[in-house]
Amino acid sequence: MESAYNRIRNEHLNQRVVSADEASSWIKDGMTLGLSGFTRAGDVKAVPFALVERARKEPLKVNVFTGASLGSDIDKLFAEAGILNKRLPFQADAIMRKGINQGDFLFVDQHLSHTSELVRSNVLEPIDFAILEAITIQEDGTIIPTTSVGNSYIFAKHAKEIIVEINMAQPEALEGIHDLYDPGKQGERQPIPLTKPNDRIGSIGIKVDPEKIRGIVFTNQADSPSTIVPPDEETVIMAQHLISFLRSEIEAGRLTESLAPLQSGIGSVANAVLNGLLDSEFEDLQVYSEVLQDAVFELIDAGKVSFASCCSITLSSEKMGQVFSNFEKYRDKLILRPQEISNHPELIRRMGLISINTALEVDIYGNVNSTHVMGTNMMNGIGGSGDFARNALLGIFVTKSIAKGGNISSIVPFVPHVDHTEHDVDVIVTEQGYADLRGLAPRERVERIINNCAHPMYRDQLREYYQEALQKGGQTPHVLEKALSWHSNYAKNGTMLKKVPQHSYVFNFWG
Amino acid sequence: MESAYNRIRNEHLNQRVVSADEASSWIKDGMTLGLSGFTRAGDVKAVPFALVERARKEPLKVNVFTGASLGSDIDKLFAEAGILNKRLPFQADAIMRKGINQGDFLFVDQHLSHTSELVRSNVLEPIDFAILEAITIQEDGTIIPTTSVGNSYIFAKHAKEIIVEINMAQPEALEGIHDLYDPGKQGERQPIPLTKPNDRIGSIGIKVDPEKIRGIVFTNQADSPSTIVPPDEETVIMAQHLISFLRSEIEAGRLTESLAPLQSGIGSVANAVLNGLLDSEFEDLQVYSEVLQDAVFELIDAGKVSFASCCSITLSSEKMGQVFSNFEKYRDKLILRPQEISNHPELIRRMGLISINTALEVDIYGNVNSTHVMGTNMMNGIGGSGDFARNALLGIFVTKSIAKGGNISSIVPFVPHVDHTEHDVDVIVTEQGYADLRGLAPRERVERIINNCAHPMYRDQLREYYQEALQKGGQTPHVLEKALSWHSNYAKNGTMLKKVPQHSYVFNFWG
Repeated sequence: MESAYNRIRNEHLNQRVVSADEASSWIKDGMTLGLSGFTRAGDVKAVPFALVERARKEPLKVNVFTGASLGSDIDKLFAEAGILNKRLPFQADAIMRKGINQGDFLFVDQHLSHTSELVRSNVLEPIDFAILEAITIQEDGTIIPTTSVGNSYIFAKHAKEIIVEINMAQPEALEGIHDLYDPGKQGERQPIPLTKPNDRIGSIGIKVDPEKIRGIVFTNQADSPSTIVPPDEETVIMAQHLISFLRSEIEAGRLTESLAPLQSGIGSVANAVLNGLLDSEFEDLQVYSEVLQDAVFELIDAGKVSFASCCSITLSSEKMGQVFSNFEKYRDKLILRPQEISNHPELIRRMGLISINTALEVDIYGNVNSTHVMGTNMMNGIGGSGDFARNALLGIFVTKSIAKGGNISSIVPFVPHVDHTEHDVDVIVTEQGYADLRGLAPRERVERIINNCAHPMYRDQLREYYQEALQKGGQTPHVLEKALSWHSNYAKNGTMLKKVPQHSYVFNFWG
Repeated sequence: MESAYNRIRNEHLNQRVVSADEASSWIKDGMTLGLSGFTRAGDVKAVPFALVERARKEPLKVNVFTGASLGSDIDKLFAEAGILNKRLPFQADAIMRKGINQGDFLFVDQHLSHTSELVRSNVLEPIDFAILEAITIQEDGTIIPTTSVGNSYIFAKHAKEIIVEINMAQPEALEGIHDLYDPGKQGERQPIPLTKPNDRIGSIGIKVDPEKIRGIVFTNQADSPSTIVPPDEETVIMAQHLISFLRSEIEAGRLTESLAPLQSGIGSVANAVLNGLLDSEFEDLQVYSEVLQDAVFELIDAGKVSFASCCSITLSSEKMGQVFSNFEKYRDKLILRPQEISNHPELIRRMGLISINTALEVDIYGNVNSTHVMGTNMMNGIGGSGDFARNALLGIFVTKSIAKGGNISSIVPFVPHVDHTEHDVDVIVTEQGYADLRGLAPRERVERIINNCAHPMYRDQLREYYQEALQKGGQTPHVLEKALSWHSNYAKNGTMLKKVPQHSYVFNFWG
């Protein structure tokens, strides 16, 4: 335990070490908690469990605000324990998702750069406790975060009290790679002085009044590893299409071989697409993203990526071991920032990012649904995709052209939920090809999307819809009575296909 | 004509004065033109007419890029002459609208801050001629714009050649009130050094190589007056609701009596709502907007507004006379900027604007349709509403709760076109009341929108839809088969009402 206490460099605070049970006992029914944690990285790993235990014995409901999704099954346990009143701004857990869609508790799906503004301007419920994972607490009370920053900075600043979990399993080597910057109140702030992914503009930790730190809990547990699956045949092809597109941009003189700072959303498809850059001729790449997944570290190892800025590092078990056991190799190539800064429109537009995010489905005019399965059921949340797509140099969305063995087409006449409008979607990539939609009118986009991105088994059916819509005319022709019929058809018949396809055809596609 | 020539302060350029016919003869079939003009202000008024004349005699199709809508019936004449291949990024003419919706030519509806980025990065067709209205040309070739800046700066910089129309009817007093700033290429740019609406960051004109100015045409014609109608009973009530909301923000400590810089969209409703501030207790207001309409000048006259930044001044005939005959009174209270700067996400977010824009319709979850009548037919375009709503401190949308004598409800189960998603819409105001949606989950928003904003004649019908949707569950409950049925019903039966209302009721409302 001695080495543990070395992690608290303020003598006075050494007296505030408590058990998770004790810390959790301070939390009252109806309170609002601001938790560290972003896509399974840097979440607190003790107090939430103690809270779940308490909820078994007494009525307890709280609002839980985080950076993004949590690991360690915390969101699952929260949902199962019925502990939640309101959860925001993002989650990615199957059980929590079920609770959300049943209406068991409220879920507020937000642009990940917006939550901090709503906390700062006192629009959201005031935060009673910020509960933050840390590597150390410095003498002056500065809290050094771990593998994510998320919203920890703004939670710490605005919470009435703070509970810190010092996680002995998190590498001390992380100290020094964070860059904490608070833009301040809207209307009083200065330009954010960042023009390149490797600019340092803030401090290495979250400086708070030590008196606000009510308790410190020790933990010793690694982050949950990421759940991404390795690239498959189709995601490899998607990466190739993306590379073809980027090559054509270089040919047109709009990009150089170092491209522009890259952002990539979470998940297997986005990871696979980044992975594809390993085999490209592109060099001296920079990353300015939310989450760094395995692929970015492989690109660093290969000498392809020279710098990566993020607000969270979420790795597979294997990669976590490699990276953290050899961290000196990466130290000068990484910065971890608050999600407000990693996702800030000002910076995304200024640097002109290439932004790659995953769509659930896309319509023939280029509107994207990123969140709602069949228009109603929440998947994870919009995350940072809106922050990036709207402001990037290139807002790219990737999706496989079909799902559920071909019974769902990811290209539909009309998306039943819009997260990204036709104005914000530049390029769509599927395993069929890519559609560059920039500067095109809706009627021009239709052809490109159907011909280049839709699966062949759905192309005629899409064309048939569009031809009927064209008879009605309009800037964006639609047959309102049939616009959502593909989704209704799926709900009723288990397929979006009008006619059941010949089996041979489907089997052919699936190899 | 002597005084006219005084407007060209470069001797060499004096020799380039030509007739509009001659200038128009340089334009070839297939070219792309970048025209000055933003919401009827500062548009070129001679060469377009000469071009329309030419199109009567020879085949001629061009792409026309502008700031926003044009006055002087130019968009109407362009559409009638069949002169257009592609038009962007905004228009507001009934005949042009008809052509767009018939598919006679292509219309690309863009965020008004985005067009310049697409020109700068060579994504759009290269601009052959920039045709720009000016007050004067200075000795070094600097072009001083008139009543709007729009995209003139970026068009001038990137066009192969420039035609200038010097309009003797535009007040020379405007010289000095423009502030032209070019942020430069994405990836190479610095922070935009603007933190307050009255910051000057650029030059008073568009500096170009005089050799690029191929011809100068003289005109003498005032801008088309704005078409706004005076406030009516309902818009007056809407203004009162907005003021109530702003008061409650002051009470909550989130605003002071000088509020935050105001942005207001074009049109009669937005103008009327601003007008309502005349009778408020708010003081020392600032405006950071696209277009200044009559109301802003009335607020300046009343001592309510101390400064107004914009990219266009669009006034009624009467107000135009008052303002321009007495311009010294306003000179130090105004700045005219490029629309890229008036609408820049970086600045809107930094300053924390209060943004007020008009919706066509809103759904029960807060998604907004600003552009497409019945989901298919273009009205005007998204304009700057997306730039502002996404990044403002307060993204407010205003609409009357019903239209067409009550046969259309502006609150619907599902908008058939989404311009602003649930993530970007903070407050909705109708003559019924306001709904503050910030920090609410979709199921919370429904109640507030129906109870506070929907017209009483539609509330039960909306509740009935929602109750049925709730049976199906989901984060955002919907009955997909019925989601668009209100619009289908209107198309078939001329009303969104399920049952024809008792006449007395409808007549009562319309008083």
